Amino acid sequence: MERITAKYYVETPFALDKAAAILAGEQSSGTFVAVPGETEELKQRFAARVESITPADVADVPAMPGATAKQGGYQRAHIEVSWSVENFGYNLPVLVSTLQGNLYELSQFTGLKLMDITLPASYQEHFKGTQFGIAGTRKSCGVVGRPLIGTIIKPSIGMTPEDTAALVKTLAEAGIDFVKDDELQSAAANSSFEHRVDTIMDVINRHADKTGKKVMYAFNLSDEIDSMLRRYEYILKAGGTCAMISVNSVGLSGVKKVCDQGQLVIHGHRNGWGMLNRHPLLGIEFPAYQKIWRLAGVDQLHVNGIQNKFWESDDSVVRSIEACLTPLFSWPDLLPVVSSGQWGGQAFETWRRTQTTDLLYMAGGGIMAHPSGPAGGVTALHQAWEGAVNGLSLEEAEATYKEFGQSVKKFGGK
Amino acid sequence: MERITAKYYVETPFALDKAAAILAGEQSSGTFVAVPGETEELKQRFAARVESITPADVADVPAMPGATAKQGGYQRAHIEVSWSVENFGYNLPVLVSTLQGNLYELSQFTGLKLMDITLPASYQEHFKGTQFGIAGTRKSCGVVGRPLIGTIIKPSIGMTPEDTAALVKTLAEAGIDFVKDDELQSAAANSSFEHRVDTIMDVINRHADKTGKKVMYAFNLSDEIDSMLRRYEYILKAGGTCAMISVNSVGLSGVKKVCDQGQLVIHGHRNGWGMLNRHPLLGIEFPAYQKIWRLAGVDQLHVNGIQNKFWESDDSVVRSIEACLTPLFSWPDLLPVVSSGQWGGQAFETWRRTQTTDLLYMAGGGIMAHPSGPAGGVTALHQAWEGAVNGLSLEEAEATYKEFGQSVKKFGGK
Repeated sequence: MERITAKYYVETPFALDKAAAILAGEQSSGTFVAVPGETEELKQRFAARVESITPADVADVPAMPGATAKQGGYQRAHIEVSWSVENFGYNLPVLVSTLQGNLYELSQFTGLKLMDITLPASYQEHFKGTQFGIAGTRKSCGVVGRPLIGTIIKPSIGMTPEDTAALVKTLAEAGIDFVKDDELQSAAANSSFEHRVDTIMDVINRHADKTGKKVMYAFNLSDEIDSMLRRYEYILKAGGTCAMISVNSVGLSGVKKVCDQGQLVIHGHRNGWGMLNRHPLLGIEFPAYQKIWRLAGVDQLHVNGIQNKFWESDDSVVRSIEACLTPLFSWPDLLPVVSSGQWGGQAFETWRRTQTTDLLYMAGGGIMAHPSGPAGGVTALHQAWEGAVNGLSLEEAEATYKEFGQSVKKFGGK
Repeated sequence: MERITAKYYVETPFALDKAAAILAGEQSSGTFVAVPGETEELKQRFAARVESITPADVADVPAMPGATAKQGGYQRAHIEVSWSVENFGYNLPVLVSTLQGNLYELSQFTGLKLMDITLPASYQEHFKGTQFGIAGTRKSCGVVGRPLIGTIIKPSIGMTPEDTAALVKTLAEAGIDFVKDDELQSAAANSSFEHRVDTIMDVINRHADKTGKKVMYAFNLSDEIDSMLRRYEYILKAGGTCAMISVNSVGLSGVKKVCDQGQLVIHGHRNGWGMLNRHPLLGIEFPAYQKIWRLAGVDQLHVNGIQNKFWESDDSVVRSIEACLTPLFSWPDLLPVVSSGQWGGQAFETWRRTQTTDLLYMAGGGIMAHPSGPAGGVTALHQAWEGAVNGLSLEEAEATYKEFGQSVKKFGGK
């Protein structure tokens, strides 16, 4: 019988084998006392199994409060646990409740992070998974051999549909590939969803008619189910190619329902991610996280970016990009969305460390606040990536390209 | 114009007013540089407003990694921020992205927790909210003047529908009010959802025909949207009165879609809660959390319990119970589900600290592993609460009631 394996990084004041057994017990047949009905046969079939325990360092101070025992330090370790696929079948929410669920509340642990999961082959048949991903996005936008260049409408909230459409026109003419709503914008008082779609798609469709290039616009679909499905149809009828969902805020079942429609590229925004990931011994790491959203069907997922404006380290960003580019079944790879404080200057380090152009490289302020205006900002990003891939240093690119040089002057000092 | 206010507990190495301004900016019009289009009029209308800053203590060591500056200690504070309802209208996922979203990733903070939110009056008209809650659950079960006594099917996973139904029969005859699936159980290989509903509801319906009392069974509905709606209809047709959803795993849009059907009581299981709450300076506190789920329409929500088997303190449990019992608009109050290592012994302290019987008091092992069997376990819980409300101490109740006395002997030593 197929099994699903999860890797955890844990911290515990208990003996490791005892703590691991509690973890496995809680997430299969366990309660705090033995109960009738818990037969050996049933345990054999449905109990979670501890596959391996690899001790790491010992901490003097617990990472998290709530420990019930203390016996000389808090032992950290990597633990692998597996479950038979019979336990949950092909039910993503129950899978998540099993992999995470009550584990974070166990007083036997002072830290617990889900690091990665391994999915059995049959999952490929039971889920549609990512349907567009990198290949589908590239095809839709007509971009080959370089990163897709994208931007976020700023100010985040408050612009009218007409102002937004005028900005999109400027950006399209400047050669942008992708534009997205801010995650705070969906349907504000002065910008109804439908009116925004109409005005923006009018600009994008005209530009496509003229040039053959269809800019991808990620309209923020996030809402309750019926509204998301109505809006989905609205985008589709208007000739749109993409919708954005704040995956943590909408949740797994809602995101899967939208992705399963299969006609729009789904841009997954992971706002709320810091709550799930920022603490080194609580929550979930990106390799596990992105697999869950690929199962749900997301095509693009945010990974922050090198030298981002948030807390995340470059190492973590690089690992996230690599996770997106690692195949899952025969589905298209997930497009990493590089975003947060990007302005082109980071293209060099991003290229150096990842050696890939399979990125959606997004700049908000880095494009909108460019000294020559948004058009200059788009040009500067194209130049930065061209320079990086051709082996120029940032300084060489600055000297070579006018608009990128302006970017360095404006944004390079931070 | 109505505003929504959020209270945060934060920690920052920056000056508090600067940090608060960054928080407000990030969650309204902000990016890392000023952008064209960000007019004063637009700011006035859509910008988040810092309402108050109340300094707390200063920490020497940051609660979380990722700070960008350090100027003599990490200042903690309570910060209130407000947004015009115009920013998001009546869109719960966008509301959540605004209240939480990128905030946890800001390098200007080394800790951030959403403590509570205040909702404007118009939200009552735009959301159905909790439709059954305490009053509706009591009416459905026919229970007045005492807590509802409930249990969880254990072993958590692996029992056949027939074994489960036989156990439910025993429990019903012993006077149980409420039974629930474990959150790990939905449709295992040996227990299809439909077959489980059929066999269990057959027992419950027969018992109701005979006695007039309908035991509430919370079938674990958690799954993708279409499956949840099919299962919902299935429960309804079989005469069921309740469905359980793992709210964090299913997510906000999916939960709301199910709750909006309005015909079954929705039991909200909050597994995954530890990830969102365990760290004192990361995530969300229950007063804010439960309001979001009341907006979505949940009727019952887990709060752990006094002296629970998890990490959560009694103080936190008491605050959670109080939050559920605090009215939200004119909706029925949320039924607090007291669960986790409960066996009856905690009834005394629970009563002493909360002075309420508006609880769904759940014991899994505490009922199933009772020395006189599950029937004895149910009786013992009724006795414990009768004793507690009548002013007996645990020891007096132990001496007064046979089955509760047996519970004390078996479970009281832990």
